[in-house]
Amino acid sequence: MMEIETLKLAKALIAQPSVTPDDHGCQPLLMSRLSALGFNIETMRFGETDNFYARWGNQGPLICFAGHTDVVPAGDESRWNSPPFTPTEREGKLFGRGAADMKSSVAAFVTACERLLLQQPDLPLRLAMLITSDEEGDGHDGTKRVVETLKQRGELIDYCIVGEPTAVDTLGDMIKNGRRGSLSGTLRVHGRQGHVAYPHMAANPVHLAAAALAELTAMHWDNGNTYFPPTGFQISNINAGTGATNVIPGELTVQFNFRFSTESSAENLRQRVHTILDKHNLHYDLDWTLSGQPFLTTAGRLTDVAQKAIKSVCGVDAELSTTGGTSDGRFIKDIARELIELGPVNATIHQIDECVDITALAQLSAIYENMLQQLAWPDASLHK
Amino acid sequence: MMEIETLKLAKALIAQPSVTPDDHGCQPLLMSRLSALGFNIETMRFGETDNFYARWGNQGPLICFAGHTDVVPAGDESRWNSPPFTPTEREGKLFGRGAADMKSSVAAFVTACERLLLQQPDLPLRLAMLITSDEEGDGHDGTKRVVETLKQRGELIDYCIVGEPTAVDTLGDMIKNGRRGSLSGTLRVHGRQGHVAYPHMAANPVHLAAAALAELTAMHWDNGNTYFPPTGFQISNINAGTGATNVIPGELTVQFNFRFSTESSAENLRQRVHTILDKHNLHYDLDWTLSGQPFLTTAGRLTDVAQKAIKSVCGVDAELSTTGGTSDGRFIKDIARELIELGPVNATIHQIDECVDITALAQLSAIYENMLQQLAWPDASLHK
Repeated sequence: MMEIETLKLAKALIAQPSVTPDDHGCQPLLMSRLSALGFNIETMRFGETDNFYARWGNQGPLICFAGHTDVVPAGDESRWNSPPFTPTEREGKLFGRGAADMKSSVAAFVTACERLLLQQPDLPLRLAMLITSDEEGDGHDGTKRVVETLKQRGELIDYCIVGEPTAVDTLGDMIKNGRRGSLSGTLRVHGRQGHVAYPHMAANPVHLAAAALAELTAMHWDNGNTYFPPTGFQISNINAGTGATNVIPGELTVQFNFRFSTESSAENLRQRVHTILDKHNLHYDLDWTLSGQPFLTTAGRLTDVAQKAIKSVCGVDAELSTTGGTSDGRFIKDIARELIELGPVNATIHQIDECVDITALAQLSAIYENMLQQLAWPDASLHK
Repeated sequence: MMEIETLKLAKALIAQPSVTPDDHGCQPLLMSRLSALGFNIETMRFGETDNFYARWGNQGPLICFAGHTDVVPAGDESRWNSPPFTPTEREGKLFGRGAADMKSSVAAFVTACERLLLQQPDLPLRLAMLITSDEEGDGHDGTKRVVETLKQRGELIDYCIVGEPTAVDTLGDMIKNGRRGSLSGTLRVHGRQGHVAYPHMAANPVHLAAAALAELTAMHWDNGNTYFPPTGFQISNINAGTGATNVIPGELTVQFNFRFSTESSAENLRQRVHTILDKHNLHYDLDWTLSGQPFLTTAGRLTDVAQKAIKSVCGVDAELSTTGGTSDGRFIKDIARELIELGPVNATIHQIDECVDITALAQLSAIYENMLQQLAWPDASLHK
């Protein structure tokens, strides 16, 4: 029964082509299910982005599931083995855009609540769902705005579970208990354009910057720590030249990104880059963008509950990790005491033939349910 | 009289909008003048390119003037102070596209021949003019093809004067007695594309190549010699990245160019670049293009005659130089014992309001005439 309900809801969500930021009816479907359970629903549309925040109960710690109904575009639909917005079961898997990222986890949490509240109408927890339709887009009017609103009214989440797909090979093998910070820079090194035959009349910005770039790419920024890998620096784009082969370029543009651990601060990284550029006497402009500060939930109550639930349902020992891209967790962390990300295998996300294992779908719902039970009755032994 | 004839012919040539490779009637005008002097004219049209080779006389050394009737486009005509193809005298200068590069020197040589042959119908020289209309374009069917034809029939030029604008500040201050070689490369460094958040799954070609590029740009290739400045290396274009700031690029493309002295060979430079790239264990492709071998006329009879003529006409001590871009000299050198380039001030070439000093125009014709006299009567003192 559990399996069928989660699968049915996941399929109903995948059937809606909710390409970011168009919710395309997914949220009304979820809201009707939550409303039937007694959740108090608050829609929060900002700009073109549909969001909602739903709350249940008035005693005990507040557990919030955060997720999104939007998906990335399907890409070349002709390359899919079944249409991306026609949920299709095949070889034990459910295929469709959003199957892994993250309509399955949204469905799994809703059905977990349904089963639990049917049996335990007096559950000693407060439950919440924070759902946006712009996690895959620029995110400007999504979770960020909802959190700002909740923060203003003093809402404080005790335990937040973000349903992003975190597993690597098998469900439960990885929980994200933090994310690295993301700091980007656009560097423009100024030279003086000229003819390659008259280099003394020009100043080649590629040549001027070469040693500084070699130093930046070879730099060891920090060692990371128990939870974070060392801070990484990557050049994503480098461009200079008019296309003509006899012209010395006048300017070099370099775009780069730091994914940084809690061992480095954005300010410190900025200073170190400027120090290197200045040491090489470069004439430059450098624009910085801080996309997200790093955040961390150290091993504690929430990670413990998650690891126990995973062990109980899947028999897997979950690793805590802070690798990967940014997530909406970076916003929610402002109003959450503890926060983890836990969802299905991410191997096929954003790809052709995105899918989720059908057994894992049911297991994920059982994990969420088990976590809620542990949080509701900390001292009880669990009876599944 | 001398002044008026050279100015008139230069103006007649500038009035023809002979934008490369369209001769637009310039060569027929020149051929009619040379024909009247008794030159034997041979037109050599290759593809869409008009060329001619004209010969006079049958005794003594062969002196060839080489030049072109085509010009670069006018650019934004509204920015010219007088229309580019309406030769205009103003403030002691003649303005128009081609005034400096190089219709004035073509006119100056023709009138020099006219004056000299009028007085000396038995001149003990063989004279030639090699004129193309595709020096400013790709040059495929221009001087290169004419020289191939002449070479096949065993023509050997004793002294060649290329009329390119070589003066820097004042007429006669610089003679080019050679040119550097030009060797270009297109380097593609292969990496593996990926997400900036997962650098261990990718290989950033910008990072892989950074130290090698720093080494290449810092390298001292040779010391040059009496005639050549040190070999120079310049990166003209560098590109990597999809434009997206969260993607590690899969490939880096670098275009570079050597202007090299006779102290380095193209083969040696190629080997040294490969050695550096291989030392850094790069996985790459590298395509080479050799645009021109360096060539040199050491100080000798022709440079001596030119320097004396300049001193006599202008009172200027001419410097020998091998700087600057490539010229058709690189082709003619194959069939010429000695070759120099000598023409007007090059400050305005390829620019808006290209011009030549009107006095210098007459002086240039006098220099050419004086050179021919010296070459005809090596031991005579000159009576101007």
